[in-house]
Amino acid sequence: MALIVQKFGGSSVANMERVRNVARIITETYKKGNSVVVVLSAQGDTTDDLIAKAEELNPHASKREMDMLLSTGEQISIALCAMTIEGMGYQVVSLTGWQAGMNTDSAYGNARIKRINTERIQTELDKNKIVLVAGFQGINKYGDITTLGRGGSDTSAVALAAALHADLCQIYTDVDGVYTADPRTVQGARKLEEITFDEMLELASLGAQVLHNRSVEMAKRYNVNLEVLSSFTGNPGTKVKEVVKTMEKTHVSGVAKDKNVARLALIGLADEPGTAFKIFSLLAKKKINVDIILQSIGREETKDISFTVARGDAEEAKRILEENRDYIGFKSIEMNTQVAKVSIVGAGMVNNFGVASRMFEALSNAGVNINMISTSEIKVSVLVDERDADRAVQAVHDKFFSEFGGNN
Amino acid sequence: MALIVQKFGGSSVANMERVRNVARIITETYKKGNSVVVVLSAQGDTTDDLIAKAEELNPHASKREMDMLLSTGEQISIALCAMTIEGMGYQVVSLTGWQAGMNTDSAYGNARIKRINTERIQTELDKNKIVLVAGFQGINKYGDITTLGRGGSDTSAVALAAALHADLCQIYTDVDGVYTADPRTVQGARKLEEITFDEMLELASLGAQVLHNRSVEMAKRYNVNLEVLSSFTGNPGTKVKEVVKTMEKTHVSGVAKDKNVARLALIGLADEPGTAFKIFSLLAKKKINVDIILQSIGREETKDISFTVARGDAEEAKRILEENRDYIGFKSIEMNTQVAKVSIVGAGMVNNFGVASRMFEALSNAGVNINMISTSEIKVSVLVDERDADRAVQAVHDKFFSEFGGNN
Repeated sequence: MALIVQKFGGSSVANMERVRNVARIITETYKKGNSVVVVLSAQGDTTDDLIAKAEELNPHASKREMDMLLSTGEQISIALCAMTIEGMGYQVVSLTGWQAGMNTDSAYGNARIKRINTERIQTELDKNKIVLVAGFQGINKYGDITTLGRGGSDTSAVALAAALHADLCQIYTDVDGVYTADPRTVQGARKLEEITFDEMLELASLGAQVLHNRSVEMAKRYNVNLEVLSSFTGNPGTKVKEVVKTMEKTHVSGVAKDKNVARLALIGLADEPGTAFKIFSLLAKKKINVDIILQSIGREETKDISFTVARGDAEEAKRILEENRDYIGFKSIEMNTQVAKVSIVGAGMVNNFGVASRMFEALSNAGVNINMISTSEIKVSVLVDERDADRAVQAVHDKFFSEFGGNN
Repeated sequence: MALIVQKFGGSSVANMERVRNVARIITETYKKGNSVVVVLSAQGDTTDDLIAKAEELNPHASKREMDMLLSTGEQISIALCAMTIEGMGYQVVSLTGWQAGMNTDSAYGNARIKRINTERIQTELDKNKIVLVAGFQGINKYGDITTLGRGGSDTSAVALAAALHADLCQIYTDVDGVYTADPRTVQGARKLEEITFDEMLELASLGAQVLHNRSVEMAKRYNVNLEVLSSFTGNPGTKVKEVVKTMEKTHVSGVAKDKNVARLALIGLADEPGTAFKIFSLLAKKKINVDIILQSIGREETKDISFTVARGDAEEAKRILEENRDYIGFKSIEMNTQVAKVSIVGAGMVNNFGVASRMFEALSNAGVNINMISTSEIKVSVLVDERDADRAVQAVHDKFFSEFGGNN
């Protein structure tokens, strides 16, 4: 008998029929002799509807009251799902975040789980009950309700799986696994049977939003066996593990596209030590994350530095740098928000430079111009014009995953 | 500086504009230098909508899960209202039932408040914050959410007022006080400035559903100063007290009508001791409440017993009695569900038999036939045909409250 934690996202419980479907999946798992703890998100658009109401009444509401409001969404989900499971003749109990012992810090709206007191859940499991837990929420030391921010329910599930030493944590979503590229836009995208935590992290940060990074990081840290699968199809999903079977040989797991990116370039910097430090410490102070950084030698003993930031941060980054033009010392600043990042991810890539060159070959053949290049242990990213992004992804995916060109 | 508990019902917070209106009333009370604790109900139809969802998924859901579901309605109200008050520039905090220390027994769906731990509320009041509390809900000794059943938010407010030793408990609703009769159907109905707890209890039980009996009983027990007033008009309301100024002289406070009544008559009972006991103990065992009882001598050493029950209980009461015909010993049973109870309520009535006779005179002049009569310390009730009920109420009201016939 295994202990399995399952998580169902908002689209999986969006209406009555889907709640019944989720109840079926849960009870089938239970019927096989497993102990089952389930984390649920709020139904479909519930959270957005509540946010809209709040903004109408006060666009600058405190995060404490926002969390009080939003936490009701998951509470409604667990109660409705529990009733459905009761109606099917099973013993079940629903628990809010605070009832389930989800202790967090006090960062309302973006709280971190500090400790899970699993006593109540254990007691209910000992009574052979199916336990439903409201995702996305917890309680702080003042006894106030907190929410975990984006991807919070995934994090709740992984944290519970870690605290309960669960054998498996299944993340049910509206896609049936992790694909080699976005199957909605890339022809021939294939589902992966397995992927490593690190690859998953790179894919998630590159815009393949299957699992939120926080949950994957936590799963890696506590070595939680993750599986991503669909609540609609019943197909086997993708397993996310520390080490996968195909680890030995170089492989590319997927191709991802990220449009939430903008490129800034500082032209004509003095070619002397400390320039980069000045630039990036100014941005760090304003909590602006910088992704790819490229430094090139310019003419007449100057240099240029280009870097990418999230698109929403671009204007502010530009303003900060312009305000400090004298301190940094540069001639001009350029901004381009019409760019996209295309990346391939795969363990062992660093040991096989042929992978990067095959990617560049594919892009060259497709007539896609590369603005910037960045490589890491397990990924190669290129910055391209936004209008070329979809074509670039397809070309690269064809190169690695088509029947003739694939290496997997 | 006074401590005031205010309660706003579902219609008072039904939409965004009304939430803003409630926020204005609360902050005006606060601005006058008062400490303010506010109890809120769920918005408008929220509770009904949640019940409908639950019934679609499982018509026999456990009450524990139903309470988990329904308690979200009040939580949404307090969060939205708190945000609105924040937006007006005041310090405010919202608290769920469990955060506010509302400890109840475990009768899910109809829980009783056992104890209120006011520590958290006191702490927030000491910080000069306006405190909003989710009505209708509490927590039991297992740490599970309970709801208080019908009229629960009124009860929450009165219980908090008692526990906090509040100077006043204001119940805001969609009527602006307690009237001498239902102002929607009776011409000349007047608002009362004051009324005693006992009169209020009689009026409530007679169908004038302004305040739920549980809350009035609790207010009487703990001597909480109650005021019923409208959140829409800003008019002074009706004060509910132990003793009112006009107590000295006989007065009629109001005329009420109750259509939720049916009459059963057992004909031809043996005229011997124990018959009434047999009948009413059988009904009591099935938790059927009996209201008016009338016993009359029949012919040939038999007697008849008539009584009234709630209309929904009539069929079951008839069935129980028929099943026990031999044990009780009666000839026939009659049932009439087309009846209504019309009552006048007023302290000191028992000492002035003229009151009852004036009521009968009014009914006689209006051509209304009386089926049964019942009197108590502070009320006189008559059972009439349902089709005569509205005319009966108007006639009686005219008698006591018209400019020419009134005694108040």
